[in-house]
Amino acid sequence: MKNILGANDEVAALNRQMFAERGVIVMNLLGSPGSGKTTLLEKTLARLADKIKIAVIEGDLFTAKDAERIERAGVDVIQINTAGGCHLDAPMIQKACAALNLAELDLLIVENVGNLVCPAEFDIGENFKATVLSITEGDDKPLKYPLIFKESAAVVLNKIDLLEFTNFDLKSAREDLTTLNPPIKIFETSCTRGTGLDDWTAWLLSKVAK
Amino acid sequence: MKNILGANDEVAALNRQMFAERGVIVMNLLGSPGSGKTTLLEKTLARLADKIKIAVIEGDLFTAKDAERIERAGVDVIQINTAGGCHLDAPMIQKACAALNLAELDLLIVENVGNLVCPAEFDIGENFKATVLSITEGDDKPLKYPLIFKESAAVVLNKIDLLEFTNFDLKSAREDLTTLNPPIKIFETSCTRGTGLDDWTAWLLSKVAK
Repeated sequence: MKNILGANDEVAALNRQMFAERGVIVMNLLGSPGSGKTTLLEKTLARLADKIKIAVIEGDLFTAKDAERIERAGVDVIQINTAGGCHLDAPMIQKACAALNLAELDLLIVENVGNLVCPAEFDIGENFKATVLSITEGDDKPLKYPLIFKESAAVVLNKIDLLEFTNFDLKSAREDLTTLNPPIKIFETSCTRGTGLDDWTAWLLSKVAK
Repeated sequence: MKNILGANDEVAALNRQMFAERGVIVMNLLGSPGSGKTTLLEKTLARLADKIKIAVIEGDLFTAKDAERIERAGVDVIQINTAGGCHLDAPMIQKACAALNLAELDLLIVENVGNLVCPAEFDIGENFKATVLSITEGDDKPLKYPLIFKESAAVVLNKIDLLEFTNFDLKSAREDLTTLNPPIKIFETSCTRGTGLDDWTAWLLSKVAK
């Protein structure tokens, strides 16, 4: 396991250097299956695609279902199928980037495999990670899956429109998140109602402008 | 990876033999983080604990939060913390079983780490797997994460009370599930309303009676 991670980290460092040289900011977007990563991405692209140049890499075990959804937003999208693998790694990203003109991009978004565990362990050379946690998953998830939240610059508490139908305690979740990771940015969003998307996309824009 | 799985399968075979000799049926309970595995388990125990003798093994990366919930149901529970590991394996189960009196049990339920990918790859010596998929995760999950649904004897479509607030297509999900795995049993449950729990627990009882 240490050898696998060592080899991954070497390629991640090369990726990071390549992204810096081409002037593109890279976000690694994480979250459980069904947390709403792809829908958040669709809404994000609709709001940002006329302001900055974005491309997307979609990671899935099988199928191109998510890539087909993103393609409709009119941005370049590369599908990576891991054939059952539980995370994306740096060599997969290196290979996928050969098909992108990085120098013309402002932001590259990598939607990782739906999984709260393994993707957090693999650096892909990104500038920052963001994790989508849906309200319906429960407020106990930050303490039960701490690494992914410690590693993330931002967490998106998604499906906030369903809050009233759950026992999710927002105050408790926010406290656990800031205990694990004091500077973490916390957004509350609903992609069906549009709640919180302005704050989220403004933050993303600020990361690109830096 | 093949070596790891080979070593795991050897211990899984030993576990399976041990369970058969002691006359205990073992269910490996799978699902995403926040699909509702622990709540389904609480409701299941409340309905079955006076009919058959049950014990539970709880798998989590960190914390004993789930085990504490199950303990309140009055059954024996063993917590396994994987310290960040993304699945339970057969040796972990073998070790945990040393603390249980298997011969006096009818049913041992193993709640695996919340993850739709890795736990499906590791046989722990169970008699059958069941996967909890919550409605809020989306109807595309069977085709996106096929292995876990191919491997499961049953799938529990949980949080069915939230169906009206989502775009989840029940017909499409049922078709995909039975295409992947024709004999799969499909249950629709709501743990908050009690919907479908009688069917689910009757099926579990029928597995123990065999």
